[in-house]
Amino acid sequence: MNKILITGFSGFVSKHFIDYLNENKIKSEILGIDLNVSEYRYNYSEYLSTKFEKVDLLDSIKLRDLIYFFQPNYIIHLASYSSVGLSWKNPSLSFKNNMNIFLNMMEIIRETSPKCRILSIGSSEEYGNVEEDKLPLKEGYSLNPVSPYAVARVSQEQLSKVYCDGYGLDIVMTRSFNHIGVGQKDIFVISSFAKQLVEIKKSIRKEQKLVTGDITIVRDFLDVRDVVDAYYRLLINGKRSEIYNVCSGTGVSLGEVIEIMCKILDMHVEIEIDPSRIRPNDNRVIVGSNEKLRKAIGWEPKIPLKESLKDIIDYWYKKI
Amino acid sequence: MNKILITGFSGFVSKHFIDYLNENKIKSEILGIDLNVSEYRYNYSEYLSTKFEKVDLLDSIKLRDLIYFFQPNYIIHLASYSSVGLSWKNPSLSFKNNMNIFLNMMEIIRETSPKCRILSIGSSEEYGNVEEDKLPLKEGYSLNPVSPYAVARVSQEQLSKVYCDGYGLDIVMTRSFNHIGVGQKDIFVISSFAKQLVEIKKSIRKEQKLVTGDITIVRDFLDVRDVVDAYYRLLINGKRSEIYNVCSGTGVSLGEVIEIMCKILDMHVEIEIDPSRIRPNDNRVIVGSNEKLRKAIGWEPKIPLKESLKDIIDYWYKKI
Repeated sequence: MNKILITGFSGFVSKHFIDYLNENKIKSEILGIDLNVSEYRYNYSEYLSTKFEKVDLLDSIKLRDLIYFFQPNYIIHLASYSSVGLSWKNPSLSFKNNMNIFLNMMEIIRETSPKCRILSIGSSEEYGNVEEDKLPLKEGYSLNPVSPYAVARVSQEQLSKVYCDGYGLDIVMTRSFNHIGVGQKDIFVISSFAKQLVEIKKSIRKEQKLVTGDITIVRDFLDVRDVVDAYYRLLINGKRSEIYNVCSGTGVSLGEVIEIMCKILDMHVEIEIDPSRIRPNDNRVIVGSNEKLRKAIGWEPKIPLKESLKDIIDYWYKKI
Repeated sequence: MNKILITGFSGFVSKHFIDYLNENKIKSEILGIDLNVSEYRYNYSEYLSTKFEKVDLLDSIKLRDLIYFFQPNYIIHLASYSSVGLSWKNPSLSFKNNMNIFLNMMEIIRETSPKCRILSIGSSEEYGNVEEDKLPLKEGYSLNPVSPYAVARVSQEQLSKVYCDGYGLDIVMTRSFNHIGVGQKDIFVISSFAKQLVEIKKSIRKEQKLVTGDITIVRDFLDVRDVVDAYYRLLINGKRSEIYNVCSGTGVSLGEVIEIMCKILDMHVEIEIDPSRIRPNDNRVIVGSNEKLRKAIGWEPKIPLKESLKDIIDYWYKKI
């Protein structure tokens, strides 16, 4: 049976990862850890046994105990302060909750369970500014991170390599592109749009306008259910010390996303650009290649963007 | 008058930087800070006024006060746990005393003196493993760090770029290759060799053998007096947001260095390889190009290797 340690257990991706294990009848014993108590209630199905512990990944003493006694054979490291915007406001906090937590955990793994397979989640932000004729982004490209968050993620990835090659740990790495889905916080762009549009549709918003940043930027959105499918397969079958883009392979502008959402909701909307939502130094276009991932683990994205957006809107419609 | 903040003030490079200012009659008001009290006694010459404060660069409250009240127009950031070997033994400590101290200081600069010109010292270790036909190393090469120390330095450099481009700070970066000179601690290879050889020469060593790691590796050694000359010129005339190799441009194997030293001391020596001094994953050859530096600031190295080694041996001869 799989013994899986999940960090960032209270987060959005973790919930979908658990659902994935359950739906695919993958028998697992899970220890979930997080800084915050989970909002979700997990079903203890016949396939899953799940325990939760509240712990700060910088608290070496407690973390060492937990890992030593649980002895995971898999770790999926989802914990991260993954907001680029926040990293501009507080770079130290972003570094602490990306690079430092990862380093701290790897030191403990090295001591207590060095044979454990680890999936280290990285970000498409690591690529930074790339000329548009070089798209889609491929894993071999050199990295040019342009935000504090992106630098922290590059550093996590380079540390992963060092822990594989220098200390013999067993780490697989991703560069994950924007993922979207039910349960994602509204500090992320698609959730924010969906929530605002539903509020406007229900006429419960003071200003009947959609507040956005720059909507001409292009991103590669992947449904979180496709993301966790890739993560599980990488955890089991990914190649040690290798990096994989996790992405749809298709770019779409935020303006186009708003159009699709408005069509789903059968509405028109006025847009108000909020300059505080435009980040210094932002990438214009981010689109990845998922060729390496497809070849390595026989994965492909299954959920079209329109279906993802519909599910997200339905979620907010019920919630508000 | 220059108001210069020097971090890592108690270290080896700082002492030579102060000597440089003094010898070149560069009037300066200096605030030196360090975790440790300085071993050196500085002459308060007619050109220099020097103050020292003991502070941990992670102590934001004290550091903010010091920088706010001093209002430097130049910062030379020499503070670093710069040993690759130590970083393998304690990666967290290495990260804390490279990446985290830098990030903490940049946050304070951003708040208190954003117009200050900063020289951020990096390392040739950032390049990592490069095929030998691509030598000498040039600034445009992609980075492939292979030790925890190297990853921390890459991260410091990438943060420098982010602070320049995203927050408008004025930072110049170096990738400094091995430097050598009088006063360097004997945890560094050349100092260690010189000290051991002098002990053997004076017959005060238990085992009359030179203990080494792998002596076939090739490094690019630059005399610290040439290093501080480059640092001062970069501080004044380097281009904002640019990276410069600081190196001699010439590779020499550790074996060759031992030969030159033995000739200076007129002795023969038996070598004992200590496996604990051979690092996992070490670079075989590191040689840099200093073309960019020469063109940018009209600098060139003035002190030949033999003269550097002679001065270092003389130093240990007097000290032991």
